[in-house]
Amino acid sequence: MQAMESIIHKYDHKRISLVEAGVTRHRSIFNGLKALAEDQPNSKLSKPEVVIIHDAVRPFVEEDVLFKVVTAAKEHGAAGAIRPLVSTVISPSADGCLDYSLDRARHRASEMPQAFLFDVIYEAYRQCSDHDLEFGTECLQLALKYSHTKAKLVEGSPDLWKVTYKRDLYAAESIIKEKISQEICVVMHTKEEKEHVGHLLEQVLKNELNHVKVTSKALCHAGSDFQQIILEQCYNFVCVNVMTPDFQESKKLLSMLEGSNLSILYPVVVVLVHFFDFKLVPLSQKMESLMWIKEFAKEVKKRNILLCGLLMNYSQDEQKLQESLREGAIIIAALVKERNSGLVGQLLIA
Amino acid sequence: MQAMESIIHKYDHKRISLVEAGVTRHRSIFNGLKALAEDQPNSKLSKPEVVIIHDAVRPFVEEDVLFKVVTAAKEHGAAGAIRPLVSTVISPSADGCLDYSLDRARHRASEMPQAFLFDVIYEAYRQCSDHDLEFGTECLQLALKYSHTKAKLVEGSPDLWKVTYKRDLYAAESIIKEKISQEICVVMHTKEEKEHVGHLLEQVLKNELNHVKVTSKALCHAGSDFQQIILEQCYNFVCVNVMTPDFQESKKLLSMLEGSNLSILYPVVVVLVHFFDFKLVPLSQKMESLMWIKEFAKEVKKRNILLCGLLMNYSQDEQKLQESLREGAIIIAALVKERNSGLVGQLLIA
Repeated sequence: MQAMESIIHKYDHKRISLVEAGVTRHRSIFNGLKALAEDQPNSKLSKPEVVIIHDAVRPFVEEDVLFKVVTAAKEHGAAGAIRPLVSTVISPSADGCLDYSLDRARHRASEMPQAFLFDVIYEAYRQCSDHDLEFGTECLQLALKYSHTKAKLVEGSPDLWKVTYKRDLYAAESIIKEKISQEICVVMHTKEEKEHVGHLLEQVLKNELNHVKVTSKALCHAGSDFQQIILEQCYNFVCVNVMTPDFQESKKLLSMLEGSNLSILYPVVVVLVHFFDFKLVPLSQKMESLMWIKEFAKEVKKRNILLCGLLMNYSQDEQKLQESLREGAIIIAALVKERNSGLVGQLLIA
Repeated sequence: MQAMESIIHKYDHKRISLVEAGVTRHRSIFNGLKALAEDQPNSKLSKPEVVIIHDAVRPFVEEDVLFKVVTAAKEHGAAGAIRPLVSTVISPSADGCLDYSLDRARHRASEMPQAFLFDVIYEAYRQCSDHDLEFGTECLQLALKYSHTKAKLVEGSPDLWKVTYKRDLYAAESIIKEKISQEICVVMHTKEEKEHVGHLLEQVLKNELNHVKVTSKALCHAGSDFQQIILEQCYNFVCVNVMTPDFQESKKLLSMLEGSNLSILYPVVVVLVHFFDFKLVPLSQKMESLMWIKEFAKEVKKRNILLCGLLMNYSQDEQKLQESLREGAIIIAALVKERNSGLVGQLLIA
């Protein structure tokens, strides 16, 4: 209960009530329903028309399927998400041999979320046996057996699967990382004369990462535009600096990000790009002047912002420029994709 | 067929015969069985006692479960791997409502591999109907129905799951990456007086990455020891260089890796660590002298070797030394875990 309360507090949730779990799935759900019922002592919540039941182990539930099961529950009394079977289902005999196998096409996997008219599911739980509460796994079955309600079945998305094994945690992590890597915002300083190289980088990013939405913003519009980007939940920023070693603008963006709540849920990646001609200024000299990024990155990491530096060759030689832009785009893609905090503060070279 | 032939050629497989697939699962399996049967014209293969049927979409099959199904098939005529059901299975009625739900505890998911006495499964396929060949999904069912053989069911591991959705590809990638990240070999030069700092790094790696096996080798034993490490399929090498900028030994290791077949299946990560006192030698100067790593990394990347440089502070100040060792271990862990080719050739600083 304490862990849950601290999560509710951390993410500033307002409309969540906690109820203690039971020792089995059905006992936990029954406890939740009791907290909403009118006939229970000390009930502080009001009885809803429709109630949704969901598993925390299915983190990727979309609003769309919630809407569908609720609408179907209003009409049919009960509704649940289903998925096609991936493997054939069989029944073993007592000696561990095949008894019979089911026709895969005629069966489905029952998933969550499910929705019910409150009275339908509450009555079902009130009437069901101890054996049901101990060993049952299917709420739709209780509604059928005790409330005589045939649930409507709604096709769910593959993302509704149950995070069960270690591989499912891997998959969940990758799905989240993919989701927050779909947009990169290239931030430029409008006052710079040579801002066009930022647009070149934007173009190469678009070409190299064709599944990613690449947008650009000028920092002078910071006030409104950035609030917008943060609201739209862009988790990746590339700040372009040309020639001058003035990072005040980039620092402004970072403090804006720190001030927002964007990085509460997921880490935000910020790449500080510095364009200069590798032939005119020794690379080592530039690196020396950018060593502050390492310490600075440690600071912002505390707020879940992953900061890296990237030196790019603003060469007069068109071919070298293009090569550097392409390598830079690949490095940015790697940083955005992996989001590994072990590499914060590094100065990378394209 | 061409794609499969080129794979067989690339990985130098000797005992694989290709058979053309049919339009359904059962037709493909039947084609495979015909290629092994004696009563078929032009058969070049000899009939086996036991045949194993497996799905390519289950890439993580262990020898152990193959052994179990083959042994059980010899005794029972047929055997297959099963897993507990993750979701309850239901049957929908024609109007898309719940007809009935199955008791989850009394059913199992039928997985692969399966094994059969050749005659049992071949006869089953010869007798089964066109409807079976078109719409069936379960070989164990064919053996039961047409050869009256009750398959023995063998508990499989969770890794036998079917790579079906995008999330399964993510999971498969992570499982492979985890598997090849379980061992890191720290390579030191015995002729160096100050080799002990390499052992310090080894110790910190052991502490920070407690699920990883960290071993160390001295490069003078290269001949036999490295052949051994390569045979044991270690995919991660940390080469420690102290003070002197002589990378001949590290290059020797790299050419040994290039000469081996180790990186055919998976990329090999090599981190060239350079220890020196950041106070005595300017970091930028050292970086300048190590810029060759960038070009060199591009070369070895062609052989699927991912090379990075890592500069570590061999400080007299014990606290600074420890901090650098810890940061270095975290960077090495990130490079080994992510195995992202976008970061090859970079010089990282711990």
